[in-house]
Amino acid sequence: MKLKVYVTLKPGVLDPQGRAIHHALGSLGFGGVEDVRVGRLIELTVADGTDDAAVEAMCRQLLANTVIENFRIEHA
Amino acid sequence: MKLKVYVTLKPGVLDPQGRAIHHALGSLGFGGVEDVRVGRLIELTVADGTDDAAVEAMCRQLLANTVIENFRIEHA
Repeated sequence: MKLKVYVTLKPGVLDPQGRAIHHALGSLGFGGVEDVRVGRLIELTVADGTDDAAVEAMCRQLLANTVIENFRIEHA
Repeated sequence: MKLKVYVTLKPGVLDPQGRAIHHALGSLGFGGVEDVRVGRLIELTVADGTDDAAVEAMCRQLLANTVIENFRIEHA
């Protein structure tokens, strides 16, 4: 069973990686870029029947830093 | 205008980050995890009217390493 976990920074949390990309895009001559935010996409292949609570526990314990990040689980 | 760019490793490309997460999940006692692949989710806010060709050029020049990565652009 395939799952996708999207981990993104919470609004208001500074995103230095996004800032660097934003700056680099400007240097490459790409105008019109107002903001860049970078997150993680984690594709999990788990045994059929793995329940959402287990996947949520994986996210809380390892995949996301819930102090500064949000996560969203999507069945692929 | 908000766009999402999903950057993922091409199939067959070794994913050491995914391997490390897979191993760590096992150590935390999460059974049933068969595979883990890690990619990037880049959320761009660009001026209205920015055409897809410009965003594709951003991806090819900076956001993705097209030798080992695929990218997919999605309008949020």
